[in-house]
Amino acid sequence: MDIGGTKTEAIALDELGRVEATVTRPTVSGAEGVLSTAEAAVAELAERTGRTGFASIGVGLPGQIDRRSGEVRNAYNMGIDSLAIGPELGRRTGIPVSIDNDVTAAAIGAAHLMELGGTVAYLNLGTGVASGIIVDGAPLRGKLGMAGEIGHLPIGRLGRPCPCGQTGCLETEASGSALKAYWPAGGEHPGRTLLTAAASGDRDARRCFELLVQGAASAIRLLGLSLDPDSLVIGGGLRLLGAPLRDGIRDELARWEAESPFLAALELSRRFQLLPEGSPAAAVGAALAAG
Amino acid sequence: MDIGGTKTEAIALDELGRVEATVTRPTVSGAEGVLSTAEAAVAELAERTGRTGFASIGVGLPGQIDRRSGEVRNAYNMGIDSLAIGPELGRRTGIPVSIDNDVTAAAIGAAHLMELGGTVAYLNLGTGVASGIIVDGAPLRGKLGMAGEIGHLPIGRLGRPCPCGQTGCLETEASGSALKAYWPAGGEHPGRTLLTAAASGDRDARRCFELLVQGAASAIRLLGLSLDPDSLVIGGGLRLLGAPLRDGIRDELARWEAESPFLAALELSRRFQLLPEGSPAAAVGAALAAG
Ligand SMILES: [Zn+2]
Ligand SMILES: [Zn+2]
Repeated sequence: MDIGGTKTEAIALDELGRVEATVTRPTVSGAEGVLSTAEAAVAELAERTGRTGFASIGVGLPGQIDRRSGEVRNAYNMGIDSLAIGPELGRRTGIPVSIDNDVTAAAIGAAHLMELGGTVAYLNLGTGVASGIIVDGAPLRGKLGMAGEIGHLPIGRLGRPCPCGQTGCLETEASGSALKAYWPAGGEHPGRTLLTAAASGDRDARRCFELLVQGAASAIRLLGLSLDPDSLVIGGGLRLLGAPLRDGIRDELARWEAESPFLAALELSRRFQLLPEGSPAAAVGAALAAG
Repeated sequence: MDIGGTKTEAIALDELGRVEATVTRPTVSGAEGVLSTAEAAVAELAERTGRTGFASIGVGLPGQIDRRSGEVRNAYNMGIDSLAIGPELGRRTGIPVSIDNDVTAAAIGAAHLMELGGTVAYLNLGTGVASGIIVDGAPLRGKLGMAGEIGHLPIGRLGRPCPCGQTGCLETEASGSALKAYWPAGGEHPGRTLLTAAASGDRDARRCFELLVQGAASAIRLLGLSLDPDSLVIGGGLRLLGAPLRDGIRDELARWEAESPFLAALELSRRFQLLPEGSPAAAVGAALAAG
């Protein structure tokens, strides 16, 4: 299950890791809302699959995750300060629940669905920016569960303040929140209108798109030089910008490669891909991680 | 064996991975020079240990490494454009030779000598800057053997040009070459005199040290946020700056943590350590990787 600020996506995996059924529900905010959303999604999956139960439930969600206690903290975009969602959902459903960071879960799911081996670097361009790293099938979660938090590397060029207390974090330049800040005229869901506005000659929209592309390209360079992974996959909300985003990042990287033989040798402009549209990567990854 | 631009260090490991003997020789430059240096080091180790042969030879060296062909390219600081050192040294010694990037070898050796498990990020502050990453005992070399090349991430603040074609690479701010550029008055071996000059009030030397510390701290932040590793180890030529370097990096990180609760949660200022002085990490790691 992938619990996000606006929707919850739940899938049932069979014994071979194939998706048997998919359920999507709006996420009700707050601790009780999130729990009842999740519980209802499990019930609906049972009905759809005709199963009386499941071996395990895996939940991917944003915020600080404590996998041992099953607790999530600071999941502000779903109105949660702290919730022991693992034990609580386990009690309500009678099924063992394990939880994971949503980006780590998406990385696990992407590697599975796209059949990627070796080292996989998954770049999530969502409200925030983070990466998930898979090495030979196993996620790299980090000692404190903070591996992949590249969004708070202050390596941007615009020097914008970040809620984390630093200045110029990657997240302030290549995320959904950056999009809103770059292009306030885009309203509440600027991603849906950005491309048409840019195509119709809106200079602000075009500039906004360029900045997002540059930020995303520098995130790819960061992961490429740090890990030189077998696969580089881009997912998250900004992935909706589709082919123009992909081509923009490719062209930006190619420009950098033209100026640096060292970078050219890495061939990053040809080594990344977008997560397939509509892929339930985080839900699948959470289920797989639950075993 | 660790073949560097100025010296070659060779160690013999016993069956349990313990150092049996150590040999250090000046590296003779050029293809023939490097080969005869290595051959002589092997002979000297045989004499010291009383062994008639070794099961395998592992060589760590800078430059572009092709582990399959045993070839090294662009090892400019030892006067080598291209050399099939693996097969050549194998022919001369009659022992199978495997080669590795010197930073990867040092990471393997550091993890072994310091008995570090889980994820180990080794930061090499040498002539250049690079990192070696070990995950559960196995090095992450990368698809093209370029994992850990963080020195060419253009995330510095001073915007100095880098030989790689980019501007502001980390390597231009936190390496031995940066030291020379910051403090030309330090001459050919500025690392040896920097601390005394800074302590005696030389303002240029003091400023140079501060800049090195800031660059090193940002490299630690980069590895910390990307990997959240179980251990962070600093080695390489600048490691000779010892306790003042360690304390400087710690204090710089602590300053950043004071401004960012997010960074404070990672506790990086307390999570890195220096490679023990005189540790033959690269030689040991190369030997271990040779199996
Ligand atoms: Zn930040
Ligand atoms: Zn560079």
